[in-house]
Amino acid sequence: FKLACGLTDILVRLITYSVLESNFHTYDGLDVLGIEFNFQEMPMGGSALDLVGVPLPDETLAAAKNSDAVLLGAIGGYKWDNNAKHLKPETGLLQIREGLKVFANLRPATVLPQLVEASTLKREVAEGVDVMVVRELTGGIYFGKPRGFRTDENGEEVGFNTEVYAAYEIDRIARVAFETARKRQGRLCSVDKANVLEASMLWRRRVTAIAEEYPDVELSHMYVDNAAMQLVRNPKQFDTIVTNNIFGDILSDEASMITGSIGMLPSASLGSSGPGLFEPIHGSAPDIAGQDKANPLATILSAAMLLKYGLEEEDAARRIENAVLDTLNKGLRTGDIYSTGTKLVGCKEMGEAVLRSV
Amino acid sequence: FKLACGLTDILVRLITYSVLESNFHTYDGLDVLGIEFNFQEMPMGGSALDLVGVPLPDETLAAAKNSDAVLLGAIGGYKWDNNAKHLKPETGLLQIREGLKVFANLRPATVLPQLVEASTLKREVAEGVDVMVVRELTGGIYFGKPRGFRTDENGEEVGFNTEVYAAYEIDRIARVAFETARKRQGRLCSVDKANVLEASMLWRRRVTAIAEEYPDVELSHMYVDNAAMQLVRNPKQFDTIVTNNIFGDILSDEASMITGSIGMLPSASLGSSGPGLFEPIHGSAPDIAGQDKANPLATILSAAMLLKYGLEEEDAARRIENAVLDTLNKGLRTGDIYSTGTKLVGCKEMGEAVLRSV
Ligand SMILES: CC(C)[C@H](C(=O)O)[C@@H](O)C(=O)O
Ligand SMILES: CC(C)[C@H](C(=O)O)[C@@H](O)C(=O)O
Repeated sequence: FKLACGLTDILVRLITYSVLESNFHTYDGLDVLGIEFNFQEMPMGGSALDLVGVPLPDETLAAAKNSDAVLLGAIGGYKWDNNAKHLKPETGLLQIREGLKVFANLRPATVLPQLVEASTLKREVAEGVDVMVVRELTGGIYFGKPRGFRTDENGEEVGFNTEVYAAYEIDRIARVAFETARKRQGRLCSVDKANVLEASMLWRRRVTAIAEEYPDVELSHMYVDNAAMQLVRNPKQFDTIVTNNIFGDILSDEASMITGSIGMLPSASLGSSGPGLFEPIHGSAPDIAGQDKANPLATILSAAMLLKYGLEEEDAARRIENAVLDTLNKGLRTGDIYSTGTKLVGCKEMGEAVLRSV
Repeated sequence: FKLACGLTDILVRLITYSVLESNFHTYDGLDVLGIEFNFQEMPMGGSALDLVGVPLPDETLAAAKNSDAVLLGAIGGYKWDNNAKHLKPETGLLQIREGLKVFANLRPATVLPQLVEASTLKREVAEGVDVMVVRELTGGIYFGKPRGFRTDENGEEVGFNTEVYAAYEIDRIARVAFETARKRQGRLCSVDKANVLEASMLWRRRVTAIAEEYPDVELSHMYVDNAAMQLVRNPKQFDTIVTNNIFGDILSDEASMITGSIGMLPSASLGSSGPGLFEPIHGSAPDIAGQDKANPLATILSAAMLLKYGLEEEDAARRIENAVLDTLNKGLRTGDIYSTGTKLVGCKEMGEAVLRSV
């Protein structure tokens, strides 16, 4: 297999622990869990801006497209916060999603029994939560045109964006969501703002039409404001949620925080063909950068999702997942998931413990 | 004073309990809390659709404009859910907000000591939460043009909306938010998606510029996905939040659910001049309509906000608020805020108890 990685410190240190401090190299014939990998590290986001002045170098996108799967570190940081839009790390992230055409973003939010206490929700509300948010990732207001700034007829400066969905974009994400729900509890909740937005009205209409192909899946609809409430009131009511790019951005972060362990949660972004993109849900947490405090488990579990969804290496994926559970069972916790009675460790120690358990 | 009211059952039964079953009348010279009111009931939303076939009759908007303040019941219900857009109750709501030019929507989310247990958040997280969400209400994607449906070059149906803000719209809502924060703890968090959206970039730039007029208020910025998380993780970090129409819709609902008592929460919508619009945050809860289960306190507290923000009758406002607290102290609870050890009552009984305590 060939892998392309956008590297952050976490990735360097933990996913590719053995190659610590050797940025952006290529490793052919690496043996990982008995599978032979060609491992190619490529810069994007802040590191690419520093190295070559753009957030997604052509070489990085080309290497990503040419791979079997792409593992991505969290991007962004204070240093680049005031950059012009085309020079923001975030722009690189949007470009690689668009470039790889990974329109379906799967974001699980699961409360592990070991971590119920990490949730700010009461135990009886948090226990057993297992939601999968299927977020549309390459359309909607993130990419819609026209967008930009203009001066209106009164000489006022105006900023504008376009929320736009074509039927085929909704149909394909709906199918991924129905397939996902089918493999889970068979319940799909489509979230929109169809009482106000035309883009949402089309969304609801198409999702309802696609539902006919999946008579075994139970479909419901919910307005986004209500969904934001219901996730707090009773997250267990949800099995699979499908929603647009911006609502998915908001709701998946909310859902992951409800588990109390956003530092734990991986994600997979898949297209119709070509390599998938695998990344933690959390950001780069610049406030704790370099302090050996970050939770590496989301990135490690993203590697597990990569093995499962990207390379169909389910056994290897399960070995990584089990190593993570094992480490949690031993009581090791980074600060974000710490609770009384467990053992507080740093990023490095957590990563090493997982490695030992694989 | 002249008041125009869009009436729901709750309002008929509780706010104007004495006029039960006499819809859409005018009452001149009513004495309420020692203040003389001219009280004019007008239909909008579902009731207007049933009566005259439009969600906001011209007469209702005219009466509202001609009043000193407008008290609005929750709108909407299954019966009208599949109506065409211009015949939805929600459209009437958007029209009256636009018609009255009430661009600033104040949505308090406060955890009362009496109701800490109603929150799904752990006691230590919920206790003392007191957030004010200042939501822009007459701009952004709710009203932006162009909007609608079209067929694209591939013959695909497309639905689209425009997120758009002019500098003056941001400036005026920012000023309301800074003024609000100044009367509270002096901390304002502006929520946007400036790492992706041009409309948000302008938002951040203008809010930052207006901050110079308020050196005593501490301004911070947060991305909307992070805000959705932080409200769950540690809602006490927030004092006043200012955000656009759609993000405000989502976050204010989330914040209110965090209090555990969305059935408790009122809102005020204010313009630069002219009557304000006062309404509960919750919807019309069609699933329990007519079952005497709804919590009337949000509407009653909206009447208190009307007295305070709309008519500057602070004493009368406080009498209503105290009557509500008094009733809660007596242990009365509707189903949505019930917890063990309190007394479960219906909508009517709750309303009557408040009336007796005024
Ligand atoms: C960094 C940002 C552009 C990105 C997004 O909004 O998609 C992030 O929040 C995410 O959810 O992956
Ligand atoms: C009913 C709907 C149009 C409305 C909105 O989205 O503004 C409601 O959710 C609200 O928050 O008042």
